[in-house]
Amino acid sequence: MPAESPRVRDLAEQDLLDRIFPHLPVGSRTLVPPGDDAAVVAAADGRVVITCDVLVEDVHFRRAWSTGTAVGRRAAMQNLADVAAMGARPTALVVGLVVPGDTPVSWVEGLAQGLGDACRPLDVGVVGGDLSSGPVLVVSVTAHGDLEGRPPVRRTGTRPGDVLALAGRCGWSGAGWALLAAGREDVDADLVEAYRVPEPPVAAGPAAARAGATAMLDVSDGLLRDGRRMARASGVTLALDAPARVLADDVRRLRPAAEALGVAVEDWLLAGGEDHGLLATFPPDVALPPGFRPVGSVRERGDELVLVDGAPPRPGSVGWDHFGA
Amino acid sequence: MPAESPRVRDLAEQDLLDRIFPHLPVGSRTLVPPGDDAAVVAAADGRVVITCDVLVEDVHFRRAWSTGTAVGRRAAMQNLADVAAMGARPTALVVGLVVPGDTPVSWVEGLAQGLGDACRPLDVGVVGGDLSSGPVLVVSVTAHGDLEGRPPVRRTGTRPGDVLALAGRCGWSGAGWALLAAGREDVDADLVEAYRVPEPPVAAGPAAARAGATAMLDVSDGLLRDGRRMARASGVTLALDAPARVLADDVRRLRPAAEALGVAVEDWLLAGGEDHGLLATFPPDVALPPGFRPVGSVRERGDELVLVDGAPPRPGSVGWDHFGA
Repeated sequence: MPAESPRVRDLAEQDLLDRIFPHLPVGSRTLVPPGDDAAVVAAADGRVVITCDVLVEDVHFRRAWSTGTAVGRRAAMQNLADVAAMGARPTALVVGLVVPGDTPVSWVEGLAQGLGDACRPLDVGVVGGDLSSGPVLVVSVTAHGDLEGRPPVRRTGTRPGDVLALAGRCGWSGAGWALLAAGREDVDADLVEAYRVPEPPVAAGPAAARAGATAMLDVSDGLLRDGRRMARASGVTLALDAPARVLADDVRRLRPAAEALGVAVEDWLLAGGEDHGLLATFPPDVALPPGFRPVGSVRERGDELVLVDGAPPRPGSVGWDHFGA
Repeated sequence: MPAESPRVRDLAEQDLLDRIFPHLPVGSRTLVPPGDDAAVVAAADGRVVITCDVLVEDVHFRRAWSTGTAVGRRAAMQNLADVAAMGARPTALVVGLVVPGDTPVSWVEGLAQGLGDACRPLDVGVVGGDLSSGPVLVVSVTAHGDLEGRPPVRRTGTRPGDVLALAGRCGWSGAGWALLAAGREDVDADLVEAYRVPEPPVAAGPAAARAGATAMLDVSDGLLRDGRRMARASGVTLALDAPARVLADDVRRLRPAAEALGVAVEDWLLAGGEDHGLLATFPPDVALPPGFRPVGSVRERGDELVLVDGAPPRPGSVGWDHFGA
């Protein structure tokens, strides 16, 4: 019989760190790597982009559904998406980790490996963090980025007449979650994997900024909910064209899963979160950068913040609220 | 009867955020404040210092012992100390927060107020974060700093002949914890408060760098344990002079509490953590900057990493290890 992994409580803190560090990339912007009181990271632009996201066991992931590697990749990816959504290139992240003593050491090693897998291809360093015991797994990632001389792309800059465009997947993560919850992973393993580990179009963020995007955000809580946020911040109405047409590729992909579960594809497209696609607006004369597809247009503020195919979205769920009723 | 505070679960996420933000300072280096995908902070030096620390309920604090305000101040302070220990000036922090649904909203407001109290006088902005529900309170702070053109002061730079110096309190937090654990807050309320909220000498960090400190670190796990870390990193032995003499002010302050509990003051001086003082080394010809007192000297590496009054430290506890036996 194979030996079981030791538990976190069987190791001294330094021994656990010694198992984690080999998995973590340093990144070419890292001037002082982990091991001191703090890291030092190049910020040649004279500004640094900073964002933070927390994953909590049984709120954002389940150990029965996701390996440590998947959780690590996801924790990195969703933060890298937030950096990209400012039009910046990610440079470095730090990780605050809370681990119950009975967690297998192999799970924590997997987490580190997943963080490394996400960061290494983007030359992002994992430059430090903190490790604590506690009753529940918590992964708190802070990510940093470089604007490379460009202004940040905020939520506030879109104007009537702009083109609304989306990069990345839409509805996949929501569908994957629904398949897992229904015990129907057999229907589409790729959708389930898209829930476990989002694949945000990180490179599309700086590309959008270079192309002159007027506003951008990361779709973490669903197209409608995040679209409303951008519309509110910019004082406009976002008019989404018919989803079945402008998101036809996603519809095609999601339809078998929707039929298997007896739900409407449109719910996943409009309210499914956590794909971490990038929703951006561009002046009408701009050629969309690679990865973006046009999905609608920006109008003067009307009665609704968001229109879907010319009409108000139907009442019902528009996304995810952690604390709300 | 006064109305009870509502619980976190009674509010929508945005309503809770609306109660938190008024307490948080923006800071003059903040170019894009909270509310977008990420913040943008000035990093005029072309480098940014980054550090992260996690506080977990019942591991690092108890709600019965500390108010939300105290926990918020402490979470900020210990991170600001890490930035200072690199010789940098703190600029901004982000906060990942996990909050059980039954937490009183007033506790979370207090936490935000404590973060603000610590940051505002130092012109440090609280530039964002993330909020999640979860079964235990977790406060994960990532702090950032500006080296202002100076090289970072690492753990690796001390040389034989250097003066060893300490800024800040020594042993107070450990004593305060012991008083609380024994139910003897009456003996010295200031020591108890020093445990609840450390007062690291943040300004002494950049001052040490300007004065030419060769190495520095934040004393979070006790003088012996952190001294060993510096000695190991630099390949030297740190020779601490007789603590009763060089730390006489702390000894005077700690003696009544030690007598009340029947413990040795030296245990708190040498092994008590979490005061977040700054241990630094300076070339022998340097005038120590304000806040630092000489506590020993640096020698060629001998059999011991740290000597206390010329002798090896007596066996026993040398500090805090979260996971170790």
